[in-house]
Amino acid sequence: MNTLEAMAARYSYRGTYQNTPVPREHLMKIMEAGCAAPSGCNLQTTSFIAVDDPETLARLHALLRKPVGITAPAMICVLSQKLPSYHGRYYHVQDYGAAIENILLAITDLGYASCWVEGYVTDEHAIGRKMADILHVPEEYDLVAYLPVGIPAEEGPRVKKKPLTDRAWFNAFRKTQ
Amino acid sequence: MNTLEAMAARYSYRGTYQNTPVPREHLMKIMEAGCAAPSGCNLQTTSFIAVDDPETLARLHALLRKPVGITAPAMICVLSQKLPSYHGRYYHVQDYGAAIENILLAITDLGYASCWVEGYVTDEHAIGRKMADILHVPEEYDLVAYLPVGIPAEEGPRVKKKPLTDRAWFNAFRKTQ
Repeated sequence: MNTLEAMAARYSYRGTYQNTPVPREHLMKIMEAGCAAPSGCNLQTTSFIAVDDPETLARLHALLRKPVGITAPAMICVLSQKLPSYHGRYYHVQDYGAAIENILLAITDLGYASCWVEGYVTDEHAIGRKMADILHVPEEYDLVAYLPVGIPAEEGPRVKKKPLTDRAWFNAFRKTQ
Repeated sequence: MNTLEAMAARYSYRGTYQNTPVPREHLMKIMEAGCAAPSGCNLQTTSFIAVDDPETLARLHALLRKPVGITAPAMICVLSQKLPSYHGRYYHVQDYGAAIENILLAITDLGYASCWVEGYVTDEHAIGRKMADILHVPEEYDLVAYLPVGIPAEEGPRVKKKPLTDRAWFNAFRKTQ
């Protein structure tokens, strides 16, 4: 798929998935895409665990409070290390934002669907930490999001976006020409 | 360019640029790519100003403390709104991380080079705010990064990345099979 086509085709899919497994080769390509994203001072603070073992998936799904992606045959868990960078500042959130976007585009490019699930994973219920424990992730890494991977069973709805004229300008704020 | 090829081809270019202008049509496609990225609760907190007016570019460049991209004929300034989302939490940093990655991929796909410049734009010198003032950006928006756009004059060096086995695993932490 062409890069710009993949960006236009990507959307947050919250429906059910077909039961077709995702080949390891594809999961590896997807994680490789995540690793290809830039990171502040090249600290490479983001890493990934692809989960395709049905028993491990079932244990992770049992922790979730919303059913997004629980029928997907695979899931990418996104791990982040909060490492100090330039002048003691942190860029790990920007890093995993960029890495996740690459992963979502690779998932789309390979014919799968996904959804960036973060909000309730890292809130006061600390579900991310419980998921991390199942995956034997040490405390220095935070599990900040999960991304289901699989062939969608249907076409899901797309969110409405603001017109470009509300977000993209030339040479000054809100100048559209 | 194919999506995964664009991800592999993208890198942070800090060299000089050719003097060839970037057509408005391309700048629009690049900003459209940024707008296509997902955002927490679809708040679309990121917006963009493409600067190609030489006088405005010169005023912005005069503020910079490092010369990255100052020979580029265009620059995308990334604006972010810190809007509360799910349960009063904020996802604007993740949002602009994903949007910038889309922009960098679109820039690469169209044959240009760029570099994500953030660190010293948003530090204690508040250069981002001074740049925002030149562009008449209101206080509710932060100028969080700039991305030069142009045809590179040479091939730049690439950073060394960790091996995949240090960042991509299956079913458990550091499990590579």
